[in-house]
Amino acid sequence: MSKVFFLVSVSLDGYLVPPGMDLEHAGDPTYEDWGAQWGKLHSWILPQRFLREMLKLGEGGETGTDNDIVEHTFRRTGVSIMGKRMFDLGERMWPEEAPFHTPVFVLTSQVREPWVRPGGTTFYFVNDGIESALRQARAAAGDQDIRIAGGADVIQQYLRAGLVDEFALAIAPVMFGGGQQLFARIGRDVGVELVETIASPRTTHARYAVRKP
Amino acid sequence: MSKVFFLVSVSLDGYLVPPGMDLEHAGDPTYEDWGAQWGKLHSWILPQRFLREMLKLGEGGETGTDNDIVEHTFRRTGVSIMGKRMFDLGERMWPEEAPFHTPVFVLTSQVREPWVRPGGTTFYFVNDGIESALRQARAAAGDQDIRIAGGADVIQQYLRAGLVDEFALAIAPVMFGGGQQLFARIGRDVGVELVETIASPRTTHARYAVRKP
Repeated sequence: MSKVFFLVSVSLDGYLVPPGMDLEHAGDPTYEDWGAQWGKLHSWILPQRFLREMLKLGEGGETGTDNDIVEHTFRRTGVSIMGKRMFDLGERMWPEEAPFHTPVFVLTSQVREPWVRPGGTTFYFVNDGIESALRQARAAAGDQDIRIAGGADVIQQYLRAGLVDEFALAIAPVMFGGGQQLFARIGRDVGVELVETIASPRTTHARYAVRKP
Repeated sequence: MSKVFFLVSVSLDGYLVPPGMDLEHAGDPTYEDWGAQWGKLHSWILPQRFLREMLKLGEGGETGTDNDIVEHTFRRTGVSIMGKRMFDLGERMWPEEAPFHTPVFVLTSQVREPWVRPGGTTFYFVNDGIESALRQARAAAGDQDIRIAGGADVIQQYLRAGLVDEFALAIAPVMFGGGQQLFARIGRDVGVELVETIASPRTTHARYAVRKP
């Protein structure tokens, strides 16, 4: 059966998104310097060859541990699930060929027809909650896994509902000092086990399994 | 010159101390289950041979990476600095031979004569702030380093004042869901660089240098 997982880059103080990076300021990365802060968060992933090829940023790029993690994560993912805020921001910022190349289920109260992008990404808009989205994701994922893409609130909802099997963090050496914390409102009801720590020059990779009740 | 550093075990959601572990409940580790939670946070350090010898817990214990980190940290430390809440809790919980074996400077508004313990630990009570405590610590540390022992508020004060050179985290696979967060009120003014990630079966070790302005 498909595993449900998330992999996110997180600041050392626990945030997924820098202050100022919101829909209103999506076009102005100098606002609260969010562009540079976001770059620090993702400094491990942006130079990787697999990502550069997928986003058509050009030839070359790094290979090694970080590149392997990017590629493995992409290849295992048959479906992604995300929240409305993440989608809204992405709709403004992704290239026309959105970087998923799979079905993506968007949790929203907005009723909207599926949105088909070139390159194999289709966004489906789910209005009846996280369990419905997961059922639809399972049906679409086949033998591949289901990635909870974000944001923090959606990840928290799936964690609290006991629906996540495993997750991976790329803990970045940067402090954001504000925003929505990845593990806010989780607490000790969610039991985790350390599976693996992977050293990399720019970030600290750690993989966890979620203990089932 | 002595380096100023801290090394702490931190929960995955960013806390140093589990809910319920306070002065009032120091004698009751079943209160909010704080004893078990604290044990999870420190599960990497408690079985180590060097710690067991130092605390006279008996022969044996693990050797390897974690033990090396415990021993190295102890040997480099010429002086510790801590806050009043950490001291008050420790006064209740440390063995008579307190586990420092060096001078310890306690930040407090309480006026109190130095408290000499068997085994080489003497607690000095500093009433005029973090910079005064650090000056006294430098005078006492010789060629060794100065450890900011905690708690979170004292670490934050030293970080915000630009007085920390480096730090190490042992990121534990446990969620506390409440308390005082290690990096609350820090933000992007504190620039950090990842120095090293060290894998260990029970925790994720990461070492950072603090960038100087």
